[in-house]
This record gives sequence, structure tokens and C-alpha cells, in this order.
Amino acid sequence: MSIPFDPERFRSEGRAVVDWLADYWAHLEERPVAPAVRPGAVRAALPGSAPETPDDLATVLADLDRVIVPALTHWQHPGFFAFFPASTAAPSIFGELLAAGLGVQGMLWSTAPACTELETHVLDWLAELLGLPKRLTSGGPGGGVILDSASSGVLVALVAARERATAGRSNTAGLAEVGAPLTVYASVDAHSCVEKAVGIAGLGRDTLRRIPTDPSGAMRVADLEEALAEDAAAGRRPCLVVATVGTTARGGIDPVPAIAAAASRHGAWVHVDAAWAGTAALCPEWRPALVAGADLVDSWGTNPHKWLMVNFDCHCLWVADRAALINSLSTKPEYLRNAASESGAVIDYSDWQVPLGRRFRALKLWLTLRLFGAAALRQRIRDHVAWAGWFAERVAAEQRLVLLCPPSLSLVCFAAATGDAATAALLARINAAGPILVSQARVADRLAIRLAVGATLTDRRHVEGAWRIVAEALDAPAG
Amino acid sequence: MSIPFDPERFRSEGRAVVDWLADYWAHLEERPVAPAVRPGAVRAALPGSAPETPDDLATVLADLDRVIVPALTHWQHPGFFAFFPASTAAPSIFGELLAAGLGVQGMLWSTAPACTELETHVLDWLAELLGLPKRLTSGGPGGGVILDSASSGVLVALVAARERATAGRSNTAGLAEVGAPLTVYASVDAHSCVEKAVGIAGLGRDTLRRIPTDPSGAMRVADLEEALAEDAAAGRRPCLVVATVGTTARGGIDPVPAIAAAASRHGAWVHVDAAWAGTAALCPEWRPALVAGADLVDSWGTNPHKWLMVNFDCHCLWVADRAALINSLSTKPEYLRNAASESGAVIDYSDWQVPLGRRFRALKLWLTLRLFGAAALRQRIRDHVAWAGWFAERVAAEQRLVLLCPPSLSLVCFAAATGDAATAALLARINAAGPILVSQARVADRLAIRLAVGATLTDRRHVEGAWRIVAEALDAPAG
Repeated sequence: MSIPFDPERFRSEGRAVVDWLADYWAHLEERPVAPAVRPGAVRAALPGSAPETPDDLATVLADLDRVIVPALTHWQHPGFFAFFPASTAAPSIFGELLAAGLGVQGMLWSTAPACTELETHVLDWLAELLGLPKRLTSGGPGGGVILDSASSGVLVALVAARERATAGRSNTAGLAEVGAPLTVYASVDAHSCVEKAVGIAGLGRDTLRRIPTDPSGAMRVADLEEALAEDAAAGRRPCLVVATVGTTARGGIDPVPAIAAAASRHGAWVHVDAAWAGTAALCPEWRPALVAGADLVDSWGTNPHKWLMVNFDCHCLWVADRAALINSLSTKPEYLRNAASESGAVIDYSDWQVPLGRRFRALKLWLTLRLFGAAALRQRIRDHVAWAGWFAERVAAEQRLVLLCPPSLSLVCFAAATGDAATAALLARINAAGPILVSQARVADRLAIRLAVGATLTDRRHVEGAWRIVAEALDAPAG
Repeated sequence: MSIPFDPERFRSEGRAVVDWLADYWAHLEERPVAPAVRPGAVRAALPGSAPETPDDLATVLADLDRVIVPALTHWQHPGFFAFFPASTAAPSIFGELLAAGLGVQGMLWSTAPACTELETHVLDWLAELLGLPKRLTSGGPGGGVILDSASSGVLVALVAARERATAGRSNTAGLAEVGAPLTVYASVDAHSCVEKAVGIAGLGRDTLRRIPTDPSGAMRVADLEEALAEDAAAGRRPCLVVATVGTTARGGIDPVPAIAAAASRHGAWVHVDAAWAGTAALCPEWRPALVAGADLVDSWGTNPHKWLMVNFDCHCLWVADRAALINSLSTKPEYLRNAASESGAVIDYSDWQVPLGRRFRALKLWLTLRLFGAAALRQRIRDHVAWAGWFAERVAAEQRLVLLCPPSLSLVCFAAATGDAATAALLARINAAGPILVSQARVADRLAIRLAVGATLTDRRHVEGAWRIVAEALDAPAG
């Protein structure tokens, strides 16, 4: 490999990498979804030190085939039904390739103007497609940004909320000086990233109130109101309520309008975590349930890297008041000063996030929206929901299984009728078969098997195949 | 664009994207480094809504040429001498392409075993190449991880330091309950990310003590000792000292061994931020100055995405006690439970970072080390340092300029002899010329022009060309 850069070599070797990936995708279905690999096996197959002299690309690609690929869980496999999908596709892969190849650094508008402007623009596009209110877009005091993950979205929302609750003093003087504890609220089914953020931001995980959910998996607002009132009466300061639209375990949807009303009585920031389910707001038929109350919240986030075929990382966060975020996170050292920033006419996205630097992530979202078009993206979501519905019907008709809740969009949670031990055994048999991978959660205090439809390659026949594997696992003699 | 995935189409379109990038690199030198673009110009050239029906790739690539590229600052341009380099090259671009194309999610070992193991392995490789002590590698209680940026590295080090200082109580009960303020120390020249992290983690930016530097740009340890003692005497708890190896403004190097000794008397965590300069530890001749004291510190971070031709994001963080980090950041919800995690035999990297999800970033570091080989990477660093030295000699010999400090590795800081106004005018003239971009900082209380050699395409002739542009800007009539 020549240093610095040989365009002709880049052309031929780049083609080889593209071809390698095309072959990977073309034959993905033939592999088991998850590897049979022991801890340490990959490392044992690699040399103990970096080479002094160059290896060639063919050798590295051969090592990918020999060492790496057999030890991967294949998230793009059509039989991947675990966790939530981390779907990607050609447009997004090309977008990431372009971002890496352009190699620009978008920390400030001035360090790569198009990187910033395309991001603002594409987030306005996506907000419109999802039916989010104008107030969350860049036309007014709000706007959108791409962060790496919903975890980071919750963290920056929490920091902004903390500052709003303490008039900026926790950022300057610190929480120890501020004194009265701040409190945070989320349902018992909210994602673990809320707890993590509360820890990182110094509030202490004990200040997170886990509000019970109703049988539909939605936060009980009466309990939220009670918790808020109790904390306020005790001199604590409610600063943030996280509403989840599509909980990880079962896809429960919190009642955002009522939550926002309750939070507003205490001046608390409301953040909506719609990491997975938010993408379905592309379809008008589900939009009301998914974006209800968005006109009342302070921030709203979803992950195109889950269900919109944009490769990780692509969390889209919209805020109603970008100044609240910027004031909490901005730093202005001399070495970053520039006329554009000082004019106030531009966005410097480093002030919207934890890191300073940023990749040109808008490219992959832009390419995905343009190369697929909104209509095809909607149809894909509708297919997934329909196939999950079909699968749920099979579960409901099977006496040895229990459908633990109605399917939420494309997510189905079920269990063995005879209890957790049987469910655990069934889960193990399903995954041991090879062609599919499902994961687990607790739903209604029972161990649940989760089947989440949404991988890019998944077609109806794969969902039908998944049902056959479940049926066979039910019929298998207990091991 | 078909959904889900047509391998043959991916092959042909992927080739088109690779060719587009090869052309971009081949003609990069013909462009000005920085664009002449007004805020809003990019957005004005884009449609107001996402398309309903697909655009084709050729149209999108044409839009890149028409709208995006002319509005970028070209960080890979051979005349890019601003900030620090964000260098990338073919191996890293291929690595990012492979990561996007494989689309695996490495949050847990079990969710993509090779993603985790390759990362651990390559971080051990790099630690060895840099001459870092064994205690920071995975063989013992330490180990390395790839995070997005030095900002995130400082933040997670701070959170771990905070927990160590409060026996885990700030993470659970919160800083308000813990009471006595925690304090953090860094030199006046430390990166702004330290201040940002102290704010995010709830300590309050006022608790960051900015320790003066000596004329060489290194933290004055006597002042650090005094600040530590004063805080301790007042009942505050020193929890973290950040030592910078290669400050942003001028490349100053803090005396890590003495800092570690001072910090240890107060039980404070020592983090080394070697974001830019750390890469030069590849060369044994500079290693002693760069990794001195690494055997005494708690964490040590550097950015291959600056000077090692790995595209952003690739911050490598090594810790001496991974349990301290994990205990501060771990969450274990039911939906992530798995046998491998519970065995304790594997690393779950989501517990080492803010986000839950993670890309397969180890690929780009692995490909860079393998396809270039260590010897070529060392030679590249040596060339950059030599060329910067040559440039600094020209500056020193020019009576109208002042070399504000000896060059630090490949970084040269200089000013107009007649003061800041003249320096600002000179800076503007240099950048207005087009072929090069330099940036600014304050050094020894003077406005400095910074020339940082390190872009992948930069060769000796580009540094010579930079000097010609500076000389012409000096000769130009004041505008």
C-alpha cells in the first residue's frame, strides 16, 4: 500500500472491497445468524503484533473470511429477529463510504459548511416525513442534529434539562453547590440508557424514578403525577421526564400528551425516546400514536439506524429550543474562533453533542431518502408490520404458546404457556437451529421471546420460516 | 434502488462511488482548501422536501459535485495545515466501508464476538507499537477501547475518577448528596473538552482548576501541587488530573511523571490526553517524551484519526483498571442478558462508553496497520516532523516573523513581529490565497498562526509551497 494515496490503486482495491461485500450479502442467508465461537478464539487466530511491513489487501480479505466473518453475529441476515434491527442497505453504505472518503470534520460550520447544512436540511426533511411539528425544525428556535445513539440523545437532553432547572448553575458551580437534588422520571420499561445518562450527568441513578406501566406497557400518568408532586413537596426538583415511544421489551407507547402536561406543571423537560418505533411515523396510519404530543415536548429522538436502513450510527434528535442545548454544551476556545461562528448566522453542531469532532453522517441519511424515496420506505415498514401481525396470529392460535401482548408494530413478544423455564428452553432451541435469531426480555413479569421484524433482507418467507422453526422447536423433545 | 438488496447493483453502484472518490482525491490539489460559501447557500440549492420516488445514484453523485463538494473545507487536501490533521487514507476508508457493509452491532461480545475481540487485539497491537506499558493492555486488569473522540475519552475517565473518589456514591446517590465538591485539574492549555466533560458530569466547570504553564507550554507541577493541597485543605476532593501530551495551541507536553506523583498523594485519577502527539510515539526517538509516566497513570488516550490516517472517529483509550470504568458505566437490563456476559470471560464494550451501540471501528485501525505496516507509518511521522522543522527554520530566519516556540513535532506556531493585528492580517492573507489553510491559537499571550503538517497527501513540496505563500503574504501590500 503506497502512502500517501494512489487513485488508481484505490480504484482497483476499492472495487475488490465492494465485491467482497456484495458476495457477503449474496450468501448471507446460507450462514447461521449467530456464530458458534468461544471467547478468545478470534484473538487466538491473529498474530500477536502488528506487521512491520505491509500485508496486501487480498490477504486481509482472506483473513476476514477465515477469522472475522465466522465469528460475527450477522445483523443483516434475513433471519435476524433479535433486539431491534440495525438495518442498513446500499444507499447508507455508500453514504458512509463517501463520508470516510471525503474525510471532512464537521465540528463547526466553518470547518465543512456543507456537512452542517446538509445535516440541518435532511433533518428538516425527515421531520416532515415523520409528521413532527414545525417547532422542532430549523425554521424557528428548534432544529435537528445527528448524534451517535439514543443514549447520547438522552444524555444531552438531560444536561440541557439540568441546566434549565438550575439556571445554568449545575454546569458552572456544579450539582454539589446547587444542593437540592434533581429528579428524573421514566417508566419501568424505559431503556437502560436513561439510567446510564442520569449516572453520567452526576444526578445519581437513585434520583431516577421508575414509573409503573399499565397492562398496555404505557407509563401510568397518575403515578408520574404523584411522583412529581412528592418530589416537589420534598424540595427536590423534577428536571426531566423521558417518555418512551416503543419500549425495548415490548414496544409500549407512553402517553406523551398527558406526560407533557404533568411535566409542564413542574417545569420539567420532556424528552421522547422513539428510537425504534419513531421510523413508523413515516406511515400516516401509525403517525397519530407515535408523534402525539410532539408539539408539547422539548426533545424528540429516533434512530434511522434501527429501522430505516441507515447504518449505525444515526440517531436523529430534534429540540424545540436549540439555545438550551447549546448553552449547556458550548465551549469557545481561541483555536476554534472564526467569523462565521461569531456572526451567529450558522450552526456549530459540536455545541449540540458530547464530542467535538463529527463525521459527515448526513450523507448516509440523504442517500437513503433519495435513493429509496419515501414511498418505498413506507411500504417496507408496512410489510414488516403485516408480517409481524401474521406471526402473532400463529402464536395466538398455538395452545403451547402465549402471546404476551398484542404485537407493537413489527415486534412480537411471546412465551411458552407453561412458564419461564419452558420459555428459556424454547428460546435456546429456536436459536440453536441456526437460520434465525431471537432475543429475550421481561414482559408482564414473564420471560418473553422477542421477534422483531425489520432486517433489510427479511422477506415474508423468512417470517414464515421463523414460524416453522418455532413450531419445530415446540415439537422437539425437551433436551 | 431496489429494496432490500441487489448484490449485482451494489457491485456496479459501489464501483461508481469508489471511482467518484478516486477522482475526488486525484484532483483535490487543484481546489482551494477552503470554500467561498455563504451561510445558507448549500440549503438553498437543495429541494425543500425528500423525494417520494427514487433518485438514481448518478444524480446524487452529480449533486455532490454541484452542491456539496464546492462547499466543503477539504481536510484531506495536501495544503491543509489547520487545526490538527484529520488524516485518512485508503486502508481506513476500506475499513469504514467494511464496517458499514457488515453492519454488525458490537455493543456486547455476544452481539458480534469478532468485533469485540479484534478491537481488544488491535488496541494491544497499537499499545505495543507506541511503547505503552503492559499494564494498559488487556493481559492484566487494564485494556484498550475505541471511542469516538478524545472528548468522550476524557468524559468516561472523569466519570470513573468521580466514582473512585466517592466510592461509587456519585453514580448512585448523586453529587448533590455526596456533598463535598470534587475538583479537576488541567493546564491552561488543556483542550476545551476537559471543561465540557466537567460540565456534563455535573461537577461544574468552576471546579476545573486551570494550572499555569511554563515557557515550554508544560504544566507547572508546583502550581498543581499547590492547587491540590489548597483544595484538599478546604475539604474539596481532587478526583482527576488531566495531563496533556501535545496541547492544541502549541504542542506543549506536560510532565506526566511529576503530575502522577502529585496526583497520587491525593488519590486522584490521572488521564493523559495525547490526542494528536501520541501517534508520534510510534517512533522510538520521540517515545520517551511522549509516553513518560504512562506506567503511573490511570488512563491514556490518543487519536489515530488525527495523525495515523484512520478516519474520524477513532479515539483509542487505554485504562489501567478496566473494572473502574465498567463499574461506573455498566447497565444490565434483561434484554441484554446473555451467558457470555455472565461468565465474566468476555468484554462488553458498551460498558466502557456513553452509547450502548457500537460500530466495527477496529476494522479501520486493523487495515491501516496491516496495509501500511508499522515501518511506513513511522517514516511518515518522521517526514512530517522534518518538514515542519524546515518550515520553522524559514520562520526563524525571517525578521518580519517570530517563531513563538520551537516546533513541537510537526506543529509550528509563529506570528508577525509587529503584533496581533499584523498577525491577524497575515493569517487572512495566507488563507485567502487558496492553496493552503492554517489556523490560529494563542501562544504566550500572542495571536499565533499554526501550521500543522500531517495531511495524508502532504509532501515536502507542499510545505515548501506553504512557505512561499507565507513569504508572498508578507510581501503583499497591507490590504
